[in-house]
Amino acid sequence: MAGSAFGTIFRITTWGESHGIGIGLVVEGCPAGTPLCEEDINRYLARRRPGGSPYHTERREEDLVEILSGVFEGKTTGTPISLFVKNKDQRPGDYDALKQIYRPGHADFCYDAKYGFRDHRGGGRASGRETLARVAGGAVAARVLEEMGIRLFAYTRSIGDISVDPGCFSPEERDLNPLFMPDKEAAAMALSLIDEYRSRGDSLGGVVECLIRGVPAGLGDPVFDKLSALLGRGILSIGGVRGFEIGDGFDAALSTGSVQNDPFENRGGIIRKKTNRSGGILGGISDGSDIVFRAAFKPVSSIALEQETVDREGKPAKIRIEGRHDPVIAPRAVVVVETMAACVILDRLLVNMSSRLDRVKDFYRRWKN
Amino acid sequence: MAGSAFGTIFRITTWGESHGIGIGLVVEGCPAGTPLCEEDINRYLARRRPGGSPYHTERREEDLVEILSGVFEGKTTGTPISLFVKNKDQRPGDYDALKQIYRPGHADFCYDAKYGFRDHRGGGRASGRETLARVAGGAVAARVLEEMGIRLFAYTRSIGDISVDPGCFSPEERDLNPLFMPDKEAAAMALSLIDEYRSRGDSLGGVVECLIRGVPAGLGDPVFDKLSALLGRGILSIGGVRGFEIGDGFDAALSTGSVQNDPFENRGGIIRKKTNRSGGILGGISDGSDIVFRAAFKPVSSIALEQETVDREGKPAKIRIEGRHDPVIAPRAVVVVETMAACVILDRLLVNMSSRLDRVKDFYRRWKN
Amino acid sequence: MAGSAFGTIFRITTWGESHGIGIGLVVEGCPAGTPLCEEDINRYLARRRPGGSPYHTERREEDLVEILSGVFEGKTTGTPISLFVKNKDQRPGDYDALKQIYRPGHADFCYDAKYGFRDHRGGGRASGRETLARVAGGAVAARVLEEMGIRLFAYTRSIGDISVDPGCFSPEERDLNPLFMPDKEAAAMALSLIDEYRSRGDSLGGVVECLIRGVPAGLGDPVFDKLSALLGRGILSIGGVRGFEIGDGFDAALSTGSVQNDPFENRGGIIRKKTNRSGGILGGISDGSDIVFRAAFKPVSSIALEQETVDREGKPAKIRIEGRHDPVIAPRAVVVVETMAACVILDRLLVNMSSRLDRVKDFYRRWKN
Amino acid sequence: MAGSAFGTIFRITTWGESHGIGIGLVVEGCPAGTPLCEEDINRYLARRRPGGSPYHTERREEDLVEILSGVFEGKTTGTPISLFVKNKDQRPGDYDALKQIYRPGHADFCYDAKYGFRDHRGGGRASGRETLARVAGGAVAARVLEEMGIRLFAYTRSIGDISVDPGCFSPEERDLNPLFMPDKEAAAMALSLIDEYRSRGDSLGGVVECLIRGVPAGLGDPVFDKLSALLGRGILSIGGVRGFEIGDGFDAALSTGSVQNDPFENRGGIIRKKTNRSGGILGGISDGSDIVFRAAFKPVSSIALEQETVDREGKPAKIRIEGRHDPVIAPRAVVVVETMAACVILDRLLVNMSSRLDRVKDFYRRWKN
Repeated sequence: MAGSAFGTIFRITTWGESHGIGIGLVVEGCPAGTPLCEEDINRYLARRRPGGSPYHTERREEDLVEILSGVFEGKTTGTPISLFVKNKDQRPGDYDALKQIYRPGHADFCYDAKYGFRDHRGGGRASGRETLARVAGGAVAARVLEEMGIRLFAYTRSIGDISVDPGCFSPEERDLNPLFMPDKEAAAMALSLIDEYRSRGDSLGGVVECLIRGVPAGLGDPVFDKLSALLGRGILSIGGVRGFEIGDGFDAALSTGSVQNDPFENRGGIIRKKTNRSGGILGGISDGSDIVFRAAFKPVSSIALEQETVDREGKPAKIRIEGRHDPVIAPRAVVVVETMAACVILDRLLVNMSSRLDRVKDFYRRWKN
Repeated sequence: MAGSAFGTIFRITTWGESHGIGIGLVVEGCPAGTPLCEEDINRYLARRRPGGSPYHTERREEDLVEILSGVFEGKTTGTPISLFVKNKDQRPGDYDALKQIYRPGHADFCYDAKYGFRDHRGGGRASGRETLARVAGGAVAARVLEEMGIRLFAYTRSIGDISVDPGCFSPEERDLNPLFMPDKEAAAMALSLIDEYRSRGDSLGGVVECLIRGVPAGLGDPVFDKLSALLGRGILSIGGVRGFEIGDGFDAALSTGSVQNDPFENRGGIIRKKTNRSGGILGGISDGSDIVFRAAFKPVSSIALEQETVDREGKPAKIRIEGRHDPVIAPRAVVVVETMAACVILDRLLVNMSSRLDRVKDFYRRWKN
Repeated sequence: MAGSAFGTIFRITTWGESHGIGIGLVVEGCPAGTPLCEEDINRYLARRRPGGSPYHTERREEDLVEILSGVFEGKTTGTPISLFVKNKDQRPGDYDALKQIYRPGHADFCYDAKYGFRDHRGGGRASGRETLARVAGGAVAARVLEEMGIRLFAYTRSIGDISVDPGCFSPEERDLNPLFMPDKEAAAMALSLIDEYRSRGDSLGGVVECLIRGVPAGLGDPVFDKLSALLGRGILSIGGVRGFEIGDGFDAALSTGSVQNDPFENRGGIIRKKTNRSGGILGGISDGSDIVFRAAFKPVSSIALEQETVDREGKPAKIRIEGRHDPVIAPRAVVVVETMAACVILDRLLVNMSSRLDRVKDFYRRWKN
Repeated sequence: MAGSAFGTIFRITTWGESHGIGIGLVVEGCPAGTPLCEEDINRYLARRRPGGSPYHTERREEDLVEILSGVFEGKTTGTPISLFVKNKDQRPGDYDALKQIYRPGHADFCYDAKYGFRDHRGGGRASGRETLARVAGGAVAARVLEEMGIRLFAYTRSIGDISVDPGCFSPEERDLNPLFMPDKEAAAMALSLIDEYRSRGDSLGGVVECLIRGVPAGLGDPVFDKLSALLGRGILSIGGVRGFEIGDGFDAALSTGSVQNDPFENRGGIIRKKTNRSGGILGGISDGSDIVFRAAFKPVSSIALEQETVDREGKPAKIRIEGRHDPVIAPRAVVVVETMAACVILDRLLVNMSSRLDRVKDFYRRWKN
């Protein structure tokens, strides 16, 4: 419980530091017989890869995964899948100046307070590079969900005060601009905004939204393992997330019951909700509508502007953070949000297989024969 | 993993339905030797008790706890503490009409979809009455934290669009009005607003804020067990919560790094942050400032206005929900939020006792002698 | 992790002390829709009930269970099942003399060393009465397994040096004698042996064997969750167990590969083993043969003979344990062993439902439609 | 819960197959600040390394570990420690003949039954090579325990019917013979016995005993997390173990209470037991005496003698297992037993730090200041 494992049946355990040998993870509980190759994972990693645009950190990493175990002749064997991504462009020396100083907005001070010392090289385990392991693990989860027709789609919903216009929302556009914003015009405006803040040495926040399709009614559990709570925990564990909301979220608190209660209807023999204020979850259990949630990312903490702080001994100091940093993290976090959600959905699906006696008996009958 | 347990070391497992025999829970991992009596728990239960004001459901319950095990001569023994609260005013018959129909905004449909059938009496396990067990468990956690000087304070921050004015915030006021709103004027305005919606047969949402004092820097873990993620999971598991945010939360996404980065300073030999935009947590680890978070509650789903829906067979139906319901849930949820947070803080504190070798060696030395 | 919970999906959390209000437990993860009534549990409890024969403690308890939640109209709802058994014949005063003294062979000293003090009344949580909760939980597991045709059969294999003669093994006999020994003659001899030791003020040990039928090949997991390891943990957690072995057990260490390797054969189109030295498990995974294991119980620690010991202050003392105690525990432990094994088998079965993609896809297809 | 993780706070998650790229693991929860280098682990790995004597498999592996994360400037950082050992002498081709056939005594059939197919190369994940990861993880645990003066000592107690003579027991001898048998004469006799069975193409079983020193009274928990149960689970999860016993073990079942109850005495102001029939654990909690347990290993299943079996299609077949195999596994398992026990002891120690309020308050005071 040192915090690096996630999930009950489909469980990932991640390791690695920003400027160590690499980043890796072990995936337990992936059903045997799932077709899986490195490319299945690499296409997700590519979506968070740094470099390639002035809007992202300049650190150059190929970020190609190696499968070290658990896959045989193109299929998962049911045993742990060990995944590894080498750090190629690590430059621990870049951080020597930061050894003694506490960067505002970063966890340097907290790590020292907790552990008595820290691996100061690029934030060590607190680096955004840690998310690479989540994405690799979530890519495996997404691969399994794909087999069942469950699809996740996350995107940058806003950067600063520039939001996707729901009227202009175009899914295909998402992968066509470096901001993963599925609205061409909003993306263009956001790019200018970023340029402006970047040149001032400052940074911006943003919001990522995720849609999940293909989850029938009945996923999630009463009380503590509500699907919303499990998604929330996964998403709030991503570095820089300050808020999580589902369906109408904080706006629901300003609304009324008559507006928020989605009426049920019978559409061609299927019971469904006419509207989806609830974000696809009622009482913690999926209701058959799309699952919709949002994550608020704070502005990137590494900024070029001079800041006041103290060093390890408590002496006042000034700091300007040079080097390779994103001016806004939301776009690169889109795939992190999407894959974390995939981990939650798959894990809960596997856990919930045993919720009903008729399904347990069904399983037993097939197993026995 | 049927969803009714919460925590790693300090772990509560809850049970019970709204209109069954009662509500109970087992508390594991409470340190031996903690002074504990029923009154320690009852004063928390009193804060969520229904009845007593026109602003709450009219169900009359005494809600007094019985300690069935784990306490001997006024102190916890280290073994499981079984707690039980009888349902006295259950009226399962009131719900017969709802057996066949799916209430909009409720989990009736989801339970049927998940389990094939459901205990329809008052929502069964999906009832708000389930939170009583959380409060009892969290009261035990709060009792342990009190021994260390860690205090939690939750309150109604807003109801509909009426918010506590930070300039008028007065902690003592919280327990003086039925809305647990620590601002006399705001409370008065909110009461009128509630009356208005109540008379229309509609309901309102609200926001609860929680402050935690006395947590030194260093609580929480990197990556998945970030303190914010664990708090988020706990809070999002409370029925009706649609959003969770920490520090500046969603507003942080609209702000800039230069504003959000709390500068460090040396105040009398102690390193601390000048501001607290982060809400007391950086990189998932407490930073020594107060921990501050908010939960958004949707409007109560049980409303008197007529609503469209379907029955179990999918036939269209109209429904008006009569009976005993709160027009807004936030005030009664205040103590639920506070006690869930207590569970998270205590559990993580106990888990984190082993984070450093020097502390482990210290423990061993004392244990041995 | 205070030690009172067992299982991953099918999970029991037990509570209660020997001379408190009663003994109870919460059962999580029982599949919804399982037919369950109090009688299903009571017939298991009856098998461990004290009283009724001179060979058992004279404490008189009815040991009838109450179902407090989780069952509606005769079927489990999928939510936690709370079970409660009242202590009726508790006599805490009987133990006042033992408050200050450490009984040899008992955990009094260990509890004081661990917690700083203890509930001394009848051993508190260390009493054999704790097993009542295991039996109740395991009865629920057995009820679910019964639906699939999986049956468990435990029995007293030996008491002291009197063993069941394999040639005389007769399952029906098990429930006909108070020792649960399925060999009439051996039972008679064991009864005399017990009388002899009882009159001397001494006690005896014994061995319980358990057979499990109907588990197809494929249950259990590689490495740490081997079925043998999970069974072992469950059985070794029963008070008084000093050893656990599977198949040929310790004798296998004296044997050779050519004898121990069970050859495979094709019997009517089904691959099976000709012999069953392995006890039904190979590499930690069920092999389709009966699962066979044994537990060694130490002699009961409460004896009437005078013993040397010390009191809490370390002063030498003599002790004779009067009162109501079994001269041998194995017979009453038979049902404890059987029901603990039921918990392990059911839990692993539920966990293993997700081991293969084809079964996961199958589940999803049925769920969706 | 795919079975490859072990522990609650100190948790290892292992991966890798016999003839894949290598074997690895992630160690979570190791206290920050523990001095650790590769050599600390390598000296444990050396004790299980194959090759070097005719009594062990001829597979040649260097088995040197690489630390990939979690250690900085010679000390653990508190974040996950990733360890990796390359497979150098893997020869997957050697096993092509075994692809279609089920080896008696092996898990080939069970893996196919469970997963639908298997990585047949050298047993894949069911290979004894999997234990390498346990040893590496346990070496880290032992390193932490060493800091507190807790020492573990396992040894080969018997091979076939040749046992260490308690009168000749000499700890230093353990590492002087290839059998890790701390009795020179017994070791010589066992070596001849092995030669004899080896030349016949057969194999032998054996018993490993483990002693643990320095654990004060009070470790372990009531009910399911008894220290004996946790040790049992760990040890029974080692491939080839058929039995586990603690203290007098199965012999206790043949003994009487007056013999088995260890009397307490006051030795120089310290309360301790005069004898140690209990094996250092009473009621699941350490009693301050040495912890003593034994594991029974079945004879190695890979034998050169011809055996009857079937192939995947169920056709009868004969098999002779050629290649590189140990004639007896107990000696190489000695270090596996020792390190698994180290994992259990350390994990429980870390979990138990929070058992008492006075110790929790102590911890808080030091943390705060």
